[in-house]
Amino acid sequence: MKTTAFISAAFATAVCAQNATTFINPAVPTGQPIPGNYSGGLRPQVHFSPPQFFMNDPNGMFVDANGTYHLYYQYNPTGLGAGNQHWGHATSRDLYHWENQQIALFPPEESVFVFSGSAVVDVNNTSGFFPDQTNGVVAIFTLARYYPNAAGPQTQNIAYSHDGGYTFQLYDDNPVIDSTSIHFRDPKVIWYEDHWVAVIAYSQEFAVGIFTSPDLKDWTFASNFSYHGLLGTQYECPNLVKLPVRDSEGAVTSEAYVMTLSVQPGAPLGGSITEYFPGDFNGTHFIPFDSATRLTDFGKDNYAAQYFYGVPDGEDAISIGWASNWQYTQQVPTGNLEGWRSAMTAPRANYLQKADRIGLTMMNKLVDPAPVLDEPLETTSFGNSSLSLDFSDVASNALYIEANVTGINTTLVTGSTTLNLTFTSPASGESLRSGFFFGGDTPFWIDRGLVRGFDNIFFTDKFSAANVYDGGDGTLASWRMQALFDRSICEWFLDGGVQAATVLFYPTQPLTTLSLGSQALPPGATVNVAIWSLKSAWAPYANEQGTVVGNVSSSGEGAAGSRRDMIYEGSFSS
Amino acid sequence: MKTTAFISAAFATAVCAQNATTFINPAVPTGQPIPGNYSGGLRPQVHFSPPQFFMNDPNGMFVDANGTYHLYYQYNPTGLGAGNQHWGHATSRDLYHWENQQIALFPPEESVFVFSGSAVVDVNNTSGFFPDQTNGVVAIFTLARYYPNAAGPQTQNIAYSHDGGYTFQLYDDNPVIDSTSIHFRDPKVIWYEDHWVAVIAYSQEFAVGIFTSPDLKDWTFASNFSYHGLLGTQYECPNLVKLPVRDSEGAVTSEAYVMTLSVQPGAPLGGSITEYFPGDFNGTHFIPFDSATRLTDFGKDNYAAQYFYGVPDGEDAISIGWASNWQYTQQVPTGNLEGWRSAMTAPRANYLQKADRIGLTMMNKLVDPAPVLDEPLETTSFGNSSLSLDFSDVASNALYIEANVTGINTTLVTGSTTLNLTFTSPASGESLRSGFFFGGDTPFWIDRGLVRGFDNIFFTDKFSAANVYDGGDGTLASWRMQALFDRSICEWFLDGGVQAATVLFYPTQPLTTLSLGSQALPPGATVNVAIWSLKSAWAPYANEQGTVVGNVSSSGEGAAGSRRDMIYEGSFSS
Repeated sequence: MKTTAFISAAFATAVCAQNATTFINPAVPTGQPIPGNYSGGLRPQVHFSPPQFFMNDPNGMFVDANGTYHLYYQYNPTGLGAGNQHWGHATSRDLYHWENQQIALFPPEESVFVFSGSAVVDVNNTSGFFPDQTNGVVAIFTLARYYPNAAGPQTQNIAYSHDGGYTFQLYDDNPVIDSTSIHFRDPKVIWYEDHWVAVIAYSQEFAVGIFTSPDLKDWTFASNFSYHGLLGTQYECPNLVKLPVRDSEGAVTSEAYVMTLSVQPGAPLGGSITEYFPGDFNGTHFIPFDSATRLTDFGKDNYAAQYFYGVPDGEDAISIGWASNWQYTQQVPTGNLEGWRSAMTAPRANYLQKADRIGLTMMNKLVDPAPVLDEPLETTSFGNSSLSLDFSDVASNALYIEANVTGINTTLVTGSTTLNLTFTSPASGESLRSGFFFGGDTPFWIDRGLVRGFDNIFFTDKFSAANVYDGGDGTLASWRMQALFDRSICEWFLDGGVQAATVLFYPTQPLTTLSLGSQALPPGATVNVAIWSLKSAWAPYANEQGTVVGNVSSSGEGAAGSRRDMIYEGSFSS
Repeated sequence: MKTTAFISAAFATAVCAQNATTFINPAVPTGQPIPGNYSGGLRPQVHFSPPQFFMNDPNGMFVDANGTYHLYYQYNPTGLGAGNQHWGHATSRDLYHWENQQIALFPPEESVFVFSGSAVVDVNNTSGFFPDQTNGVVAIFTLARYYPNAAGPQTQNIAYSHDGGYTFQLYDDNPVIDSTSIHFRDPKVIWYEDHWVAVIAYSQEFAVGIFTSPDLKDWTFASNFSYHGLLGTQYECPNLVKLPVRDSEGAVTSEAYVMTLSVQPGAPLGGSITEYFPGDFNGTHFIPFDSATRLTDFGKDNYAAQYFYGVPDGEDAISIGWASNWQYTQQVPTGNLEGWRSAMTAPRANYLQKADRIGLTMMNKLVDPAPVLDEPLETTSFGNSSLSLDFSDVASNALYIEANVTGINTTLVTGSTTLNLTFTSPASGESLRSGFFFGGDTPFWIDRGLVRGFDNIFFTDKFSAANVYDGGDGTLASWRMQALFDRSICEWFLDGGVQAATVLFYPTQPLTTLSLGSQALPPGATVNVAIWSLKSAWAPYANEQGTVVGNVSSSGEGAAGSRRDMIYEGSFSS
């Protein structure tokens, strides 16, 4: 959660208190989800976006014992910019279809906001909150106080849920980690053998504090991870996650930890970026394997990714990031046109692997989009050829594309050996372009500069990633590209996730034709192309008015009560 | 020096050998400078660019006892792309006026090229090459062999000069550091107390080898500096340089070393980038102060900078970088339009300082451009206002601009508080834009997207740097911008070099008007603006045909002989 620029936004949207000990914002619905219309021409159909208003960081992500994924998120339910931060909430069984839930965490007082954090399932009731259950959920998060004219301290607090994460009660003895710092935030908690571990950013000190606890209430400072990677001007949203290390055949050979850090502002591309550090963790100290700086994305629109708590040991981690950038997130046109801002990335499976040329790499493998695949629109193979596809009749305006190039005699690759993928609007002439040069060091590139629905001085047009496919030794090589195209967001995955890019684009007219073509591939090389239309993950839940109302059926009971309990001990009317 | 993509280019330009033991390319002039025409509309007037053809990395930079700066450079004297690498040479007394010299180092054999390296003055004759002089110069450089179809080893070699660096003889017992690696290159040598130190990139192993020598001939491996910073896919052009550490008043408080690394390809912005690491050096091992990754430039066009050897201890270092990016350097329009490609950056003075927000920072302070300043075009002060300037009658089409903003009450700065600087072509409507948001985290930005003379998929349009000026504590702050505008290259320096950007742009028509304006500055703030036209550093040396012939007068004698000696022991005719 970004704070420096947040101050003015927070005050712009804060609503007055009712009295000194109670605070309720009558504009914020309680006990029921906020409804949303997901039919707008820029609204992603297979990505999560909030029903209305402004979203940023993913928070509190965990998967429960029933296999339900819980995604909370920084949420301003009363405005189209950052401020008035709550935790919105959505759930999914498959990571593509999301059901909006009631808001899970509310500001406890006027001018105190719920910033980013995480959640865990306290199966063994270490906290004592859950004497009779194994599915108790504890959220740990930053409360950020904003005095009328200055930022106050940021402290770490917990809340607990007896209903599996739908409603929460604030812990009586908050904060659990006190502070006088105005830049100490975004706790992420994991379990390590016999204790809890939290990583928390001392943002402007360029340090991640590592804390331990037996019970999620009493925390002990253990160590700092400081001055690693690109600093920007702030560290935010650290994660510590255990990942399998896989060999080139995909077999798990060992495990290692990865520390991730989100940096904002001051990324090389401008604004926000996320970097990661593979290493060893012994329960109190994280030691990276090396001093290299590795980035999760070569686009500009993937920040603050979090890793689901509760994924079984030994399996790939699963992460979701905020698909935006603080440089322009509060200006993107979806706000004025459609009443919402920001989507999450598609889910990625993460593991470590030694990649060609660049070595140890955290893979960003697209979680199988099967739940939203419609019929294949096109399945074909060719050497040097191209295809064009009019997908204007695909209701979702969303596609999944795979291009697998096999049998590449790399000694015959030239500077002209390319594969290009372009989406175009016949109506407006806008296009979103990408392509790969197979030869030499020349890279995979993406250009959103010919899409014209958003004019912003920070909306950088071009991105690229160095060529690291398994070429160059004369053997028959292969290369693979996946693209998940979804109205105003497209994600590219190269070679199964060695490199990935998340790119927002805002066309004035829908992009409805696709071209994919190769040239100068060596004899014997084959491009295997498959293109699926995608089923909207939202349309089936819209009512006759086009409104997705979310999970009303199960959200009524505990909600108001838990919110009331969380906020104060008195009474209120809503 | 980039090699992977170089292979095809090298063969494209290599010229056949005369026999097995001699090699001479009749197309390459010896014993005299290559003449150049510096009047083209895209040709920088106060930056160094080669007389003709293609240039990349700066090499061999040293300042001699007379105060003459020697700049060598990777040079293809027969083509407009990389390949056929020689060491071009130019000299300067003031770092702005450069005199072209004859080519200093030539390929010794067919398919063996002179890649990047450095030079030192062997005052004490440690090498034994200079029994009767104190101004002997030794160059150490990579020779890269290209067999007909594959790259051969890269080895480190030396050559020595009795005439102060104008002509060189190859050492008989080369290589001085042998290797079987095809990616081991770019030696940079410094003196440390009682021995020579070389840093050399093991490019694709992401390591810098540190070697020591008593005499520049016998080298001993000492240590590796490995896996630091952004890796890209190759490390290139390391530098190790001692810098003064200055306090906020500018006083030298201590000294430290900085390791710089250039990475290519795979930079976050795409292609090429340079990063640096402040730390301790004990003569054999470099230990960075932290594991942070710091970048020298927030633009995309500053690579492989080298630091002059011979700057007195305790003074600021002086560096010059290659103002381009491998992603597009061989396509920029100056080649076809004007017969040259690539310029060097302006000279920067470098020291370490603790900057606001971001801490220890290598400053990139523009070396005083006084030698090329003409009359001030404009000197004015205002609060919230703007000025427009038609500089179409400035023959050089080059300007130096300073804007010093003082007395900023930072508590009254808003999101609208800005200062903008734009260069425009009235003829074509093209513009090169930049600006600063004083409030919050929002940054300084540059946009070359409205300049239209170069359409390339890698020519990223927008750059930005996070706001780190001394705002935020309520005191009266100040902020300073300098810009050196020179036909097709512009460099920005913020707050005296805390941040710097080098940006190429290729207008179809000259940009000849400037606007500079502020808005929403708090009461009491003053913008002090000074704008100078610049005198061309090249025009005075052009003959009636517009040709700058370079230093013919002093270059004739030793040249052919030294080149002959360097190449082989037989005879040749040219």
